[in-house]
Amino acid sequence: MQQEEKRLRDGRIVRGETPLNLEMPFETLDSFITPTESFYVRTHFPIPSIDRGAWWLRVEGAVENPFSINYEELLELESVTIPATLECAGNNRNFLEPKVKGVQWKLGAVGTAEWTGVPLSTLLDRADAKANACEVILEGADGGMLDEPKSPPGELRFVRSIPLDKARRDVLLAYKMNDSELPAEHGFPVRAIVPGWYAMASIKWLQRIIVTDRTFFGYFQTIDYAYWKRRGDIAERTPLTELQVKAQIAKPAEGETVPANATIRVHGAAWTCDGEITKVELSTDGGASWKETKLIDKPIPDAWCRWEYQWQTPSQPGKQILIARATDSQGRTQPVERDPDRGTYMINHLLPIEVEVQL
Amino acid sequence: MQQEEKRLRDGRIVRGETPLNLEMPFETLDSFITPTESFYVRTHFPIPSIDRGAWWLRVEGAVENPFSINYEELLELESVTIPATLECAGNNRNFLEPKVKGVQWKLGAVGTAEWTGVPLSTLLDRADAKANACEVILEGADGGMLDEPKSPPGELRFVRSIPLDKARRDVLLAYKMNDSELPAEHGFPVRAIVPGWYAMASIKWLQRIIVTDRTFFGYFQTIDYAYWKRRGDIAERTPLTELQVKAQIAKPAEGETVPANATIRVHGAAWTCDGEITKVELSTDGGASWKETKLIDKPIPDAWCRWEYQWQTPSQPGKQILIARATDSQGRTQPVERDPDRGTYMINHLLPIEVEVQL
Repeated sequence: MQQEEKRLRDGRIVRGETPLNLEMPFETLDSFITPTESFYVRTHFPIPSIDRGAWWLRVEGAVENPFSINYEELLELESVTIPATLECAGNNRNFLEPKVKGVQWKLGAVGTAEWTGVPLSTLLDRADAKANACEVILEGADGGMLDEPKSPPGELRFVRSIPLDKARRDVLLAYKMNDSELPAEHGFPVRAIVPGWYAMASIKWLQRIIVTDRTFFGYFQTIDYAYWKRRGDIAERTPLTELQVKAQIAKPAEGETVPANATIRVHGAAWTCDGEITKVELSTDGGASWKETKLIDKPIPDAWCRWEYQWQTPSQPGKQILIARATDSQGRTQPVERDPDRGTYMINHLLPIEVEVQL
Repeated sequence: MQQEEKRLRDGRIVRGETPLNLEMPFETLDSFITPTESFYVRTHFPIPSIDRGAWWLRVEGAVENPFSINYEELLELESVTIPATLECAGNNRNFLEPKVKGVQWKLGAVGTAEWTGVPLSTLLDRADAKANACEVILEGADGGMLDEPKSPPGELRFVRSIPLDKARRDVLLAYKMNDSELPAEHGFPVRAIVPGWYAMASIKWLQRIIVTDRTFFGYFQTIDYAYWKRRGDIAERTPLTELQVKAQIAKPAEGETVPANATIRVHGAAWTCDGEITKVELSTDGGASWKETKLIDKPIPDAWCRWEYQWQTPSQPGKQILIARATDSQGRTQPVERDPDRGTYMINHLLPIEVEVQL
């Protein structure tokens, strides 16, 4: 389960070669927009190689007017550009004790980019969804055999669904990332961006949109990318959806040495879903006391907000525990303890970072 | 995975001690009603020891009038008695190649009993389900920790749901089995009987009925006791429900020796869901030719029908392959090949039985 941290591509940590998983070292955070070449990469299958001239996106299912659209036609439609933070649902997994299966992400399976593309509502309007439609299934071109317990036999593609109202309101079909063509590892030619949701919903290499009149129960929202939600005392299998409010410390990093009796800039980023970050607090004494930090970016929905704090380090050497804690406009904040019902996902409990103060 | 077949209790094969799993040796089939002491037992947790005086059944959820009823009160309500066949969803699992995890049932995780109890509709009427109710969740008193991948953390009870219309139409709350008090291992004091469904739905040690206005996603119908159903080429996780049409050969048994040039009685039972058995055919030449057998019992819904055939054995010694094949009133019959989407459940493909003809 332990993986060596060898830096391979543009300073990103390689968490897996096949499939390719790359992590941004979170201590390198220094801009609101994550440069594309630093952005984390999460894949489940080999990266599809798609010829833009041969690519078609099919819209079908519970619609009056099923149709296909090609890359050129999509680019001719009215586009929008939005900043959105994507976070892998397993970000921070490496901090779980005991260790669990899955890619051992530390802090860097998260990033913010500007995404340019066509609102999914434009295509749904053209397709004319039937009155009883309730979900939209998005299918990527990525697929293969999974060697997991309870996975479907044979090949499967990466497929996931979104409620129709969310799909209409928020989802973008992005063909540009940070004003450049979408790179292959980020879903060329077109990926979905589902703002506010964990990034497994932002289907890459999009090839099919199926409007449906009933709830979808694909592998990646039942067996995988799901958690246990309680109805009273009874656990129910529930697809992962919304990002959980969270602040992360970029610097100082875990294990870093800082000078005693000095003013050190502690900084990081915080994000949430369905609201904005209103407050990030920092504790430099392991949670005994909290100080409010300064928000660097104007808090907006669906994107992170960087924060910073000028920390007057102790005059004596020794270990210090830093903890960041975010609160959002719905008044939600981070839990102190890990909720085991979340399995290996949705990790947003307080994460203490140990640093060493030296004379 | 292989288990020794030691006969322990009343001739039943012990497939597990904790939890207790007992199988009827199917070659002992010789009556329409399976004697209670021969009936297979499937448990997931320790058998609850329930005091009839302290037992209450709670009806709650999306109802106008939640209430609890005790054992005496339940016995005062109008009762019905129905024969119903229960089959474990993993019956025949031992025949799967390659071997899979799970209790290694051969042919005997099936039986037919007469069940006496109160229609669930009686209690649902008293509770007055709300107009938007759609399912009924049944909770047993049996529970504990599961050591399975993807199981919920902590203790869980055996809980499963049934659509409200099925619950109203067919489900019985049984307190008698074959005209005697329900034994502890069969769910004392009260179990559900869900005719036509695999027996994991017939919740034992029933203690709570929750009417609900949305689909339920408990462990035992999502991670376990579920299969992959295809929507086009996309697999969807789907709870096991209806029995699949099936005929089984009781005698001769696998590996049995039969005399050459003799008339041998081949017999067994067949069952289905939502209909009756209309035909059981037998092949004594490995599937090359089929002969219709005689149905011993009058075919009725929700109970097996025994069948027999007088087989003129070959004059020459050697191996012979017997196969039984059922057809039901909906025209459904058994598949030749195993469908891997069914995982370790719903095993009703044709099962060849090898016997040895000897001079």
